Amino acid sequence: MVNYMECQDYGLTRNTERDNLNLNPLQRGGVLPIEARKALVEYSDGYSVCDYCAGRLDQIPNPSITGFLDDLAKFINVDHARTTHGARESKFAIMHALCNPGDTIIVDGNAHYTTHVAAERNKLEMIEVPNSGDSEYKITPEKYQQTLEDAIDKGIDVKLALLTHVDGNYGNLTDAKGIGKVAHKAGIPIILNCAYSMGRLPIDAKSLDMDFVVGSGHKSMAASGPIGVLGLKEEYADKVLELSKRHKVKELEMLGCTSRGAPIATLMASLPHVAERVKHWDEEVQKTRNFVSQMEEIEGITQVGIRPKEHDLTRFETPIFDEIAEKHPRRGFFLYEELKKRNIVGIKRGQTKWFKCSTYGFSQEQVNYIADSFKEIVEKYI
Amino acid sequence: MVNYMECQDYGLTRNTERDNLNLNPLQRGGVLPIEARKALVEYSDGYSVCDYCAGRLDQIPNPSITGFLDDLAKFINVDHARTTHGARESKFAIMHALCNPGDTIIVDGNAHYTTHVAAERNKLEMIEVPNSGDSEYKITPEKYQQTLEDAIDKGIDVKLALLTHVDGNYGNLTDAKGIGKVAHKAGIPIILNCAYSMGRLPIDAKSLDMDFVVGSGHKSMAASGPIGVLGLKEEYADKVLELSKRHKVKELEMLGCTSRGAPIATLMASLPHVAERVKHWDEEVQKTRNFVSQMEEIEGITQVGIRPKEHDLTRFETPIFDEIAEKHPRRGFFLYEELKKRNIVGIKRGQTKWFKCSTYGFSQEQVNYIADSFKEIVEKYI
Repeated sequence: MVNYMECQDYGLTRNTERDNLNLNPLQRGGVLPIEARKALVEYSDGYSVCDYCAGRLDQIPNPSITGFLDDLAKFINVDHARTTHGARESKFAIMHALCNPGDTIIVDGNAHYTTHVAAERNKLEMIEVPNSGDSEYKITPEKYQQTLEDAIDKGIDVKLALLTHVDGNYGNLTDAKGIGKVAHKAGIPIILNCAYSMGRLPIDAKSLDMDFVVGSGHKSMAASGPIGVLGLKEEYADKVLELSKRHKVKELEMLGCTSRGAPIATLMASLPHVAERVKHWDEEVQKTRNFVSQMEEIEGITQVGIRPKEHDLTRFETPIFDEIAEKHPRRGFFLYEELKKRNIVGIKRGQTKWFKCSTYGFSQEQVNYIADSFKEIVEKYI
Repeated sequence: MVNYMECQDYGLTRNTERDNLNLNPLQRGGVLPIEARKALVEYSDGYSVCDYCAGRLDQIPNPSITGFLDDLAKFINVDHARTTHGARESKFAIMHALCNPGDTIIVDGNAHYTTHVAAERNKLEMIEVPNSGDSEYKITPEKYQQTLEDAIDKGIDVKLALLTHVDGNYGNLTDAKGIGKVAHKAGIPIILNCAYSMGRLPIDAKSLDMDFVVGSGHKSMAASGPIGVLGLKEEYADKVLELSKRHKVKELEMLGCTSRGAPIATLMASLPHVAERVKHWDEEVQKTRNFVSQMEEIEGITQVGIRPKEHDLTRFETPIFDEIAEKHPRRGFFLYEELKKRNIVGIKRGQTKWFKCSTYGFSQEQVNYIADSFKEIVEKYI
């Protein structure tokens, strides 16, 4: 009988965030404020948000998911907002509703792997707009337009466009409005992937000329994962929010209902906090620029991607650490270990040539401590 | 500027479960044990389980998602186990991997709406095996076989079969082993939808002759929603767990990664608890049978579906309450209100002709109190 089993110890304690300054950009925007921690405890059980459901998650009055979705739609300026299980699930759903297997879409060359995987799962072909390739790795409207026009000239019917608002490699903020215009000039609907922007900086889908915006609750909206946002224009509601023929109130691309329990409760509780924090986005950008200038005081450390920074996700090339690693008895692990001693984590173990990091949400004092720690480590070995 | 917004009050307090006995079958199997509540708090932040990820969620060593998935696979006796966002997402993924738009599948007539919606989103045709239609609403291997053979005789190429292990309307436990054989005799792979069984009663996929089993963490495995289980035989791993051509470690149908954060942390923490509780399934069945016999002492209340009960989800026809409602000043709302006064909830407001309920997880004393309350309400008005 298989059920008389001994389970392993899964080690379900997480001290990483509690005891350290975590520089992993993935983690910075998903830390819950106190009001979300309370909601988490209230709505911990399985189908907790469904006590008053009359058949549709998005219309539940208590807790007011319906009121929340109205606010969310206003927050990002879209006609309809839904929650999904993540930005990737939002992208998959839009592609699935608008395209058929074999169709072609255009995406920027800095797109997240989940964009590729969502397209591949939908059996779509992808045309990619190359980035500038110099030390900025920039995606420009001009290049987007040129790539799109080249494809159209070749007779390719491009069904859908996607732009990564802020990419996960360089933290480059793209000219969404400019690229939105390019897509619409060619009559192509466009998705803005805001996984690294929605919840960190203000998003106004209509003024950015976007048909769809997708966001990530766990990445940038102070919510417990997994939860995503899907915002869209009325024009595409009949396709993306199409109802089941058999179960008349159920939205097909949502498989009826999406988020239940802790993720949606925390996203709801965090929205007022998030709506407030995006007002202070310029302070976060200033803090990042200050961090970059402190880091670049170290010879052998250079920020790559757009300069000056327009987002907290920052990529550094760090030949100096690679040089130290060559002679260090712990080789590439020394950097991780030296940082860990100083209660700084989030840079991958063994990585010394380059790394990505973020100081989003840290105080200026913490930022100074982090930059000083890097300086101290270099001085120790050089 | 849209972001200077006032959010509504979403009412994020849930007293329903805290202050009452909740008879909603949807809620009974998703209540977290204390160890899961602790894990919830530990892993509350966004991407909390991803601190030590090297590219694949299912291989994360700390917390040991990899160890957990091994245990989970043993628990349900499958070659591979994955977590998804819910049983519906598991069903969608299997159908998506194995079928093409326009293909036909066979499902039982008591299937959950999410089975229909998953098929419809995949643009599949469905053949349905009717239930017995008498007061038992039973799905039998004989009828399944006959319906399947009729379809094959008509030249229909049936690509996939699905059976609902325990349905959500009558709580009927089906003869999975018998129907598994029927499907395999015809050379058709079969999915067992265990949303109402996995985590409540022992599931052994191989001995039930099932290629796929899907489960629901929030419905029956004491986890915070949304999270599902997908278990499969080695034979189908190349299709259902197919890797991306571009991102070699990412599983396409999982869109790379699925559950992050609170849902998976709670499912992991609950597995030992769940593995223990399925051993006591016979006690739950006995408790349900006792509840039914107490309820049927009331004239005008009859349990429908298979008799005697083999699952906690129970449907009663209750003409007696309908009769009271006709004369009551509060009409159909009286039952809900009378129960609420006695701190019993989970029966839909306004419903008096029939209702579904479950006493899963309650003590015998609580069961007696619930049955006595129904008796008291009838006596008050008749």
